[in-house]
Amino acid sequence: MGKRDFISTLDWDRAELQGLLDMARELKQSPFREDLKNKSIALVFFNPSLRTRTSFELGMHQLGGKAIVLEPGKGAWPIEFEDGSIMDGDAEEHIREAARVLSRYCDCIAVRAFPKFQDWQVDRTDHVIKQFAKHATVPVINMETITHPCQEMAHMLALQERLGSTDGKKYVLTWTYHPKPLNTAVANSGLIIAAKFGFDVTLLCPTPEYRLDERYMQAAESYTQANGRKLTVTHDIDEAYDGAHVVYAKSWGALPYFGKWDQEKPIRDAHKHFIVDAEKMAKTDDGLFSHCLPMRRNIKATDEVADSANSLIIDEAENRIHVQKALMLDLLR
Amino acid sequence: MGKRDFISTLDWDRAELQGLLDMARELKQSPFREDLKNKSIALVFFNPSLRTRTSFELGMHQLGGKAIVLEPGKGAWPIEFEDGSIMDGDAEEHIREAARVLSRYCDCIAVRAFPKFQDWQVDRTDHVIKQFAKHATVPVINMETITHPCQEMAHMLALQERLGSTDGKKYVLTWTYHPKPLNTAVANSGLIIAAKFGFDVTLLCPTPEYRLDERYMQAAESYTQANGRKLTVTHDIDEAYDGAHVVYAKSWGALPYFGKWDQEKPIRDAHKHFIVDAEKMAKTDDGLFSHCLPMRRNIKATDEVADSANSLIIDEAENRIHVQKALMLDLLR
Amino acid sequence: MGKRDFISTLDWDRAELQGLLDMARELKQSPFREDLKNKSIALVFFNPSLRTRTSFELGMHQLGGKAIVLEPGKGAWPIEFEDGSIMDGDAEEHIREAARVLSRYCDCIAVRAFPKFQDWQVDRTDHVIKQFAKHATVPVINMETITHPCQEMAHMLALQERLGSTDGKKYVLTWTYHPKPLNTAVANSGLIIAAKFGFDVTLLCPTPEYRLDERYMQAAESYTQANGRKLTVTHDIDEAYDGAHVVYAKSWGALPYFGKWDQEKPIRDAHKHFIVDAEKMAKTDDGLFSHCLPMRRNIKATDEVADSANSLIIDEAENRIHVQKALMLDLLR
Repeated sequence: MGKRDFISTLDWDRAELQGLLDMARELKQSPFREDLKNKSIALVFFNPSLRTRTSFELGMHQLGGKAIVLEPGKGAWPIEFEDGSIMDGDAEEHIREAARVLSRYCDCIAVRAFPKFQDWQVDRTDHVIKQFAKHATVPVINMETITHPCQEMAHMLALQERLGSTDGKKYVLTWTYHPKPLNTAVANSGLIIAAKFGFDVTLLCPTPEYRLDERYMQAAESYTQANGRKLTVTHDIDEAYDGAHVVYAKSWGALPYFGKWDQEKPIRDAHKHFIVDAEKMAKTDDGLFSHCLPMRRNIKATDEVADSANSLIIDEAENRIHVQKALMLDLLR
Repeated sequence: MGKRDFISTLDWDRAELQGLLDMARELKQSPFREDLKNKSIALVFFNPSLRTRTSFELGMHQLGGKAIVLEPGKGAWPIEFEDGSIMDGDAEEHIREAARVLSRYCDCIAVRAFPKFQDWQVDRTDHVIKQFAKHATVPVINMETITHPCQEMAHMLALQERLGSTDGKKYVLTWTYHPKPLNTAVANSGLIIAAKFGFDVTLLCPTPEYRLDERYMQAAESYTQANGRKLTVTHDIDEAYDGAHVVYAKSWGALPYFGKWDQEKPIRDAHKHFIVDAEKMAKTDDGLFSHCLPMRRNIKATDEVADSANSLIIDEAENRIHVQKALMLDLLR
Repeated sequence: MGKRDFISTLDWDRAELQGLLDMARELKQSPFREDLKNKSIALVFFNPSLRTRTSFELGMHQLGGKAIVLEPGKGAWPIEFEDGSIMDGDAEEHIREAARVLSRYCDCIAVRAFPKFQDWQVDRTDHVIKQFAKHATVPVINMETITHPCQEMAHMLALQERLGSTDGKKYVLTWTYHPKPLNTAVANSGLIIAAKFGFDVTLLCPTPEYRLDERYMQAAESYTQANGRKLTVTHDIDEAYDGAHVVYAKSWGALPYFGKWDQEKPIRDAHKHFIVDAEKMAKTDDGLFSHCLPMRRNIKATDEVADSANSLIIDEAENRIHVQKALMLDLLR
């Protein structure tokens, strides 16, 4: 039997993921265990983190294990990811060594590696974490690359806590303004996890250029179909919010403008009104609001919405620790 | 019952603080306990640290708990502190979320946030830690902002170890030269803790402009009066050292020159002779010397004084771990 | 009895080191112990690290103890190392305080401090770690300065695992090209540990200027003599590889060019063919290959050699944790 990685929920079916969510709920009730005593995880951050670091480091501790935090390029060596390369540039270390050595020390490797944002055709290969997974001999967990599966699970747990069954409910993933173009990871993730868990899914974005990568659009299409639901893409705010049970907000950069962000700026600047506010939420069916953190207040959502009783932002963030503990238990026990 | 924070000793009375010191003494004898098993603390550093980090991280471990070290702006997101702000600047995350999420993960949040040193009227509001305390649902501990209460406690423990009772003894807080204007935190702290614990307190500084903020001057005045002691401000070195039992050295920037430090420079440069040396110490009553660390040798105090038998600098630094463990036990048990 | 440091294997005899290696082998079989419960180590990194940090932090944890990671100048204060200095420069803290305070908190201090690379006469004094050892009251461990004794031990353990006895076998330490001049630490270390453990040692380098410091050349000379073996220096690749049992590769900067690296560049650039490749390895006696990590692939060794069955690079890296645990047990139990 080979090892199993947690790189994308595309590779895990709904029943498996529900198993993790059920375990997470249990851990939320009884957080302290010793199952992973003598186990360890290396947390490799190529990008900064607050919640992810705290929830993984503390989560592993609460299961009896030990997390080691590494920041290549800061406290550690820059890493080369191409096989066969002649390493005469900046990188001092090859992923073949980094991944294999960490596999000797630790029982699991978690990686955060954001896209480089120059060329989506490159970024969409998810090369960094794929290379980690290829060379590591232990399970590899995605702490956010071009998707953010741990956030998906925390999000879904928060939704199930409030909604019970999610089947047939209306889920809106809405683009919102942000002064900078952002990673599509959480948007991709929201789309596919909602589709997998039986929602009718609406993607609301300013123009067709903000459509997400076809890999995720097609997955969402196929999941909704299999569940007897539908996937809708719209640029009409009213249509999207109408009767929604969930509004998940996120900003992202439009894929056709990758690497030429100055050309995208006028478009995004023209859509600041996509902010989630009380007026829009009033059109929903007592809809829940959420956003992964960090979230710019009064840019992506108003204080009123963020602080409303229907806001899940803090619950979803808390759930990160519970779902990640469930995941580590599943992969390492 | 609300939570209790440890932001300033102004909010804790002498008996409560003495309780912490007594517990610290006990922990110094028997350092290893399991009282805080399954408890955790987030250590949030907006500024660098050696002793504070080591003593909190190790201290929590020695009580059976777990510390998580976070450095916003380095390994984590920059944080916005203003309520209601439209977050279109650098900050990606609001304190409302940061504090509430950390409160979900951890049982306590400790914060180091130095003044910005542009405008004392702003810095004196202690806005960063106050906002943490406001939004957190767990106790918040001050790891140095505009006061340094953990240092106060370590200092007082070291003094009690040598002096026994501190009542009626003469305590001199002396300004010393430093090439840069520094935070007044430890000076404020030395002043108020000495006053609270029954010393006759003398503040020695080059000119009236180095008087500390009135909030702390008045607190010291009121504490000394309540104890039947007195608070003296002097610019006369001989008068200050004469018969002193304790000399606590610290450099700080003069409040009237906040943000226009080039105008202060000639004044500080003219007072390099405030260095604590053997000649001055000879005027004391076998006086103890101390300084929080780090300390620039032969600038603030001579090697001779720093390395003398009467120097408490290492004991005081060691005591940080003991008093902080007592504090965590008190707040989290 | 004074404390014992682990700064250089020059201060430890072969039997003592073999004792550590034997213990390391045992720990490799049974990694989890509680011997160092309530013990702690401060890991002080003046330079970045991946393996060293992970292996020390995790190793201490697996023995029941606690490691604290400090990065002076990043998360902590820059440190002054000269006794008696007037500290009016950048350094805020003196080693006298840093070492003594850490000694109060922790049971051991490990230090990584690379040479400054301006003047070998300065660097060769190993001032930083020597000052730590002088002022600390607990054992000090070298995590790489001008030698890298923990790497030596991991290397030797990997060799013994494959060769059994090392006596009388042929060991080649070969210089290889690297785009930048590098620290001689691992080269010095390879030379002296191979000599101490009974190898016939050949130092292969491009020109006489790449000879290592006389302190290590003489030690290797004296160790080989005492063992009835010999030390050879050669610039002839064929002669060196002929019949070798071990090829240890490393790049380093030539000592006569310290601080004037532009003058050395043409020499190093002319010797890129020192790369370890299959053609050279074919001349050995089924020789083992190793290199400390990080290693630039296809610059120092070809992928073919690095990934061959005779390559020890991953085993050697893994062994870091085992030998360091043995060392901490030895020094702290």
